[in-house]
Amino acid sequence: MATEHPGPGETELSALDAHWRAANYLSAGQIYLLENPLLRESLTSRQIKPRLLGHWGTTPGLNLVYTHLNRVIRARGLDAICVWGPGHGGPAVVANSWLEGSYSENYPDVGRDAAGMARLFHQFSFPGGIPSHVSPDVPGSIHEGGELGYSLAHAYGAALDNPGLLVACVIGDGEAETGPLAGSWHSNKFLDPVHDGAVLPILHLNGYKIANPTVLARLPEAELDDLLRGYGYEPLQVTGDQPPLVHRAMAVAMDRALDRIAGIQRAAREEGAAERPRWPVIVLRTPKGWTGPAEVDGLAVEGTWRSHQVPLGQVRENPEHLRQLERWLRSYRPEELFDGDGRPVAEVLACVPEGEARLGANPHANGGLLLRDLPAPPLEDFAVHVGKPGVGLHEPTRVLGALLARMMAETAERRDFRVFGPDETASNRLDALYEVTGKAWQEALAEGDENLARDGRVMEVLSEHLCQGWLEGYLLTGRHGLFASYEAFVHIVDSMASQHVKWLKTARKLPWRRPLASLNYLLTSHVWRQDHNGFSHQDPGFVDHVLNKSPEVVRVYLPPDSNTLLSVAEHVLHSRDYVNVVVAGKQPCFDWLSLEDARAHCARGAGAWEWAGSEHTGREPDVVLAAAGDVPTQEVLAAANLLRHHLPDLGVRVVNVVDMTALMPRDLHPHGMPDGEYDALFTRDRPVIFAYHGYPWLIHRLAYRRAGHPHLHVRGYQESGTTTTPFDMVVRNDLDRYRLVMDVIDRVPGLGVRAVGVRQAMADTRTRHHAWIREHGTDLPEVAEWRWTV
Amino acid sequence: MATEHPGPGETELSALDAHWRAANYLSAGQIYLLENPLLRESLTSRQIKPRLLGHWGTTPGLNLVYTHLNRVIRARGLDAICVWGPGHGGPAVVANSWLEGSYSENYPDVGRDAAGMARLFHQFSFPGGIPSHVSPDVPGSIHEGGELGYSLAHAYGAALDNPGLLVACVIGDGEAETGPLAGSWHSNKFLDPVHDGAVLPILHLNGYKIANPTVLARLPEAELDDLLRGYGYEPLQVTGDQPPLVHRAMAVAMDRALDRIAGIQRAAREEGAAERPRWPVIVLRTPKGWTGPAEVDGLAVEGTWRSHQVPLGQVRENPEHLRQLERWLRSYRPEELFDGDGRPVAEVLACVPEGEARLGANPHANGGLLLRDLPAPPLEDFAVHVGKPGVGLHEPTRVLGALLARMMAETAERRDFRVFGPDETASNRLDALYEVTGKAWQEALAEGDENLARDGRVMEVLSEHLCQGWLEGYLLTGRHGLFASYEAFVHIVDSMASQHVKWLKTARKLPWRRPLASLNYLLTSHVWRQDHNGFSHQDPGFVDHVLNKSPEVVRVYLPPDSNTLLSVAEHVLHSRDYVNVVVAGKQPCFDWLSLEDARAHCARGAGAWEWAGSEHTGREPDVVLAAAGDVPTQEVLAAANLLRHHLPDLGVRVVNVVDMTALMPRDLHPHGMPDGEYDALFTRDRPVIFAYHGYPWLIHRLAYRRAGHPHLHVRGYQESGTTTTPFDMVVRNDLDRYRLVMDVIDRVPGLGVRAVGVRQAMADTRTRHHAWIREHGTDLPEVAEWRWTV
Repeated sequence: MATEHPGPGETELSALDAHWRAANYLSAGQIYLLENPLLRESLTSRQIKPRLLGHWGTTPGLNLVYTHLNRVIRARGLDAICVWGPGHGGPAVVANSWLEGSYSENYPDVGRDAAGMARLFHQFSFPGGIPSHVSPDVPGSIHEGGELGYSLAHAYGAALDNPGLLVACVIGDGEAETGPLAGSWHSNKFLDPVHDGAVLPILHLNGYKIANPTVLARLPEAELDDLLRGYGYEPLQVTGDQPPLVHRAMAVAMDRALDRIAGIQRAAREEGAAERPRWPVIVLRTPKGWTGPAEVDGLAVEGTWRSHQVPLGQVRENPEHLRQLERWLRSYRPEELFDGDGRPVAEVLACVPEGEARLGANPHANGGLLLRDLPAPPLEDFAVHVGKPGVGLHEPTRVLGALLARMMAETAERRDFRVFGPDETASNRLDALYEVTGKAWQEALAEGDENLARDGRVMEVLSEHLCQGWLEGYLLTGRHGLFASYEAFVHIVDSMASQHVKWLKTARKLPWRRPLASLNYLLTSHVWRQDHNGFSHQDPGFVDHVLNKSPEVVRVYLPPDSNTLLSVAEHVLHSRDYVNVVVAGKQPCFDWLSLEDARAHCARGAGAWEWAGSEHTGREPDVVLAAAGDVPTQEVLAAANLLRHHLPDLGVRVVNVVDMTALMPRDLHPHGMPDGEYDALFTRDRPVIFAYHGYPWLIHRLAYRRAGHPHLHVRGYQESGTTTTPFDMVVRNDLDRYRLVMDVIDRVPGLGVRAVGVRQAMADTRTRHHAWIREHGTDLPEVAEWRWTV
Repeated sequence: MATEHPGPGETELSALDAHWRAANYLSAGQIYLLENPLLRESLTSRQIKPRLLGHWGTTPGLNLVYTHLNRVIRARGLDAICVWGPGHGGPAVVANSWLEGSYSENYPDVGRDAAGMARLFHQFSFPGGIPSHVSPDVPGSIHEGGELGYSLAHAYGAALDNPGLLVACVIGDGEAETGPLAGSWHSNKFLDPVHDGAVLPILHLNGYKIANPTVLARLPEAELDDLLRGYGYEPLQVTGDQPPLVHRAMAVAMDRALDRIAGIQRAAREEGAAERPRWPVIVLRTPKGWTGPAEVDGLAVEGTWRSHQVPLGQVRENPEHLRQLERWLRSYRPEELFDGDGRPVAEVLACVPEGEARLGANPHANGGLLLRDLPAPPLEDFAVHVGKPGVGLHEPTRVLGALLARMMAETAERRDFRVFGPDETASNRLDALYEVTGKAWQEALAEGDENLARDGRVMEVLSEHLCQGWLEGYLLTGRHGLFASYEAFVHIVDSMASQHVKWLKTARKLPWRRPLASLNYLLTSHVWRQDHNGFSHQDPGFVDHVLNKSPEVVRVYLPPDSNTLLSVAEHVLHSRDYVNVVVAGKQPCFDWLSLEDARAHCARGAGAWEWAGSEHTGREPDVVLAAAGDVPTQEVLAAANLLRHHLPDLGVRVVNVVDMTALMPRDLHPHGMPDGEYDALFTRDRPVIFAYHGYPWLIHRLAYRRAGHPHLHVRGYQESGTTTTPFDMVVRNDLDRYRLVMDVIDRVPGLGVRAVGVRQAMADTRTRHHAWIREHGTDLPEVAEWRWTV
């Protein structure tokens, strides 16, 4: 592995440099030029964009990496993609894609000629054109160039179960300061050299972020080496600002890294080596804004943070800036790089691989091309038997676990399905999975370890960021997965979820991007059952966050029991291009619906449970009791039971909502119920007491346009809780059965004197509850032993 | 510094062990016992709690650390606090606080005697008692034991500007896997050994999290050492499972670490050493659930993940578990630790420091005790002159920057005010700060560096997690600060913000916790002005997230111009115990209000701008045009201008909302307007066209109970955007002036035929806009040059 590489010869070096210069030229051109793309004439200020928007600083480094990846892909016949962490460098990745031809294949109006180059330049950061970041529009990208922190996790996610794939990953030294990136280095403890591909991190230290030096670039080199070794990598250094020397050093480092990777894979796959390998990392130190203006208006720019965005800011107004820009652009010698028609010359393209080997055309970076349907085992094999509603008790997520285990078993050969969770898979009752696969783990094993396996497809690490980032990388490369999290802690990835929704929203509009498997969240250990924890673990607001996002992408389900969870899970796991949020309990929960009823209920999204209300009396409802979520459903049914007993003449309709977006107007969400349907279900004029799993305002937000909205009264989580009993939680938040009955009595007019007594009895029971739990530490026996009775 | 420490003598060792055993006993007692706290009789199942809720696994390690911190605080006269990262170990910190007496001082009903011990045990994880985590209820704590990841950032925040303080920080190996914690190690690049205190991280490797081994515990020791050295620390190892040996090793390691810290501080403070020091870190390896049951039901428990929560689960039902529990509790020999009255004996208390030196009584951990009012420079010094509204243009955050700089200057001696931001302070136009202080930076300096300083009080690192964590630690120890962030990226800390709100909500109810300075967010580079970035940087939803939280804690302000921003900033910077979110622009923005008007407007929270509407005509409003946010305000005023020109007979009221919670009902938020006031402002029956900065549904959520709600029509961000012009952003989201005029025409009945023509003209202008920006890349001249005209 330690063979000395002589590096490329002079001809090859010259060709690499030509490619790099061409990419740099095309990048700067995108930022500045409206016309005159080939500089056939002297630049005039009219040819300059009126608003200069873009990020030059990181761009030459990205161009260097792209050029050298081209070389090794071609030389070694690699199957490779690259994650571009410094996504600000949109011009770089677009330029390279145009050079290799993949851009024009996806956007035929931007051809690989002078006219196409003019369009390429014009469209960048221009209204009606393309954004300045590496976005879904960019061929070969699986990584949004927005918020920093997730490139390396995406890269590892892409490499999982892709043994033939190399995933290069450029990490900027700005991004490297983020927590999620700092934690992502340890992903190598979870990558199996036999069944997974390789990740080649390229830590690009250009020294500066927007306005400051970076922490890692200013470390003494030995300290940074310690850090990377401590993370489990073998660092390879490339440092310089002289292009020929850097090309040579980069080529040598790339060869060393790839030899090392090949050696690791050979040892693991052919020789059965079982120890965790020390994968290579390339540390690339080149100046920020390299080859751009050294100095502008007397201030150093190249090699400083001043080159972060647009090095020359007044090109239209300031003739000196215009002259400097022209000198800069001509320094790449475009006349040597592009022929008379504006096409890249042969030398420029000498390093570029062909067909799907090109970074912009590799199908792994357009994962929908490779996506296969997940197996669909019959739900009948997993459903719980429900003779009479509300008698049997099951842990819904445990029931789901058996289905997931079957899917895991049926993908054992294909290896395109994984379950991700922060150390909580068993806590979340999904441990049936361990009967068919292990938890991925490459570190040492110790006595007593359970269910750890090098080739395991359950991913557990105490980092929601890693779970989310790995899963995103896995999905974007055409596979399937589920992220199971404690409900409270999923806010950790609010921002990542938001970016993935944005990605999907944009990607869905691109005909060449093929649909991906949805990103599926299972949120459990939810707000109502934090028995071991308490207030700090209570937060049902992820649903609110997600529902602010594009309705064409987001879906939210609150299945009230085991069979509805199965039905929802089957649906979401086979869906495409969505972000699905499923909130379900792990604690024993009454079985309300048979599988058949559950399927019908989930298909409708919301519906009346006739058996629970007074429909059998033929009476029109005086009140609607609605619920969304497992605990609210139980309280609503208990309240319906109390009403039937105490106020038998009251017309009660019980409604259950599984699909939260069914409440939205149809014109705001495709799942929204038409008004007629909504009115028929909830009535236009009767009081609706709605018990909701999360923050109550969400229901108002979704339903405010409905005719019956003035009569809607919502109970939900009011940010009140501690370590206490399950029933005390609902009492503290006024979501309990007794409170709901009181709400009904308070809102249905003309109930008469009997209702006054019932109301008092309910209030008395709540008082009794408070006394009881303080004395006994457990719930009132009548609550603990409650069953649905008709 | 490398002096060999002989360690404590036998008597001291024995006393340390007695303290530790007492803490372990009290911890297990809290988890299990309802009665019989001193085991004066044999345990019966009736004496066991009916629900066993708590976390034993981490507890003995925390007890060990507390014991040894006591020793060094006492021996060296240290001023020290400790951040308990494994906050699950609530029983440990509570037990130690009770032992040292600080618990009983704050909770006199839980005395340091047998009766108090009984209450201590009974209350833990029991309804009406205390939560199972380290929560605000726990004396000495500044760190909620909920979500993991932030302990080390909190510790560094506490140490800033506290040169005499030692902040110990226990980091569990579970927490160490999180991204934020992994990134926090680099905080040492920002800690000034002269003006700041010391942080002593204690990485506690007990080997397991809930259900898995941990990444760091399974690293070869040399690899972990590399990692910690790479992070810039000098590791000191303490490993063992034999208490006497571990006590000795821990005492020696503590002494070495503290000598090293003293040496570093002496070198920096007395000898002027300028190189970044290598601070010590203690790596403590002890078994999970140490001294608990070795085996339960034939399965290993001590030293495994099975001891994470309650090692013996069926104590009430299973006599063997009961016997095992009794053996376990008696193994600590309580009869040697507590006297006949249940008071800790002298040997147990021998290591405990006195008075405010105790960890549970140190005033830094109850920061309100130390809090001083911030200077309040007269806003007149910074206000912009507004003769006529809508003529002058200023960048609001730049105007604010001058005020912040003055406050920074006026706290130069006190050093109790800092500004935090992820590499964006200058980008956010707050760079006036650099005229009075630098950016904290302890790494090497290079040519061209600007505004870096070892003692700087602007904190910039490309990590929102660190900014938030440092600021929280800084505030919780009694200082002041501001976190300025790009609006889109503040979602990164959604979960941290949520925990801080929970902390404040709980702490406000504790009479002994004194009010803290509020946590203030300045969100800028907001959704409407992402000129350099685009869709991926657009997300105004943090406001929604925060407004789900406890109304007694959260406040949200959207000042529409420079003077209102000044007024809001003055208010929030001097407020206590809130989380204030201020959203303000950094791009040039029209000046609407004089300082005097701004103050009056902000005090009201929302009000009519008579000069902008048709009030001068004496006409009742036919329509209300409302705005919240700077860009919506501009569009509403432009729309009002258009209406005045095109439909001069229309009665228009222009309303501006600064304080979002003013829209809420008074019973839901103390800032909520009484209904009468709301109705007088917005009318009960006229159409209200509300242009809002963020997701439009928020306004409905806040205002749904108001009488006029059926007539409320909200425009806001609809998740539509790209890299484009500022005006195109508002057009894409239907928030532009022309659309607002069309909305008015569509909703005010009986406007007649003239309005039809006006509506068509508006629609035509929107069409013209689309064509113009595609051709020119800039906004329509009539938009770019628009000024308010009357």
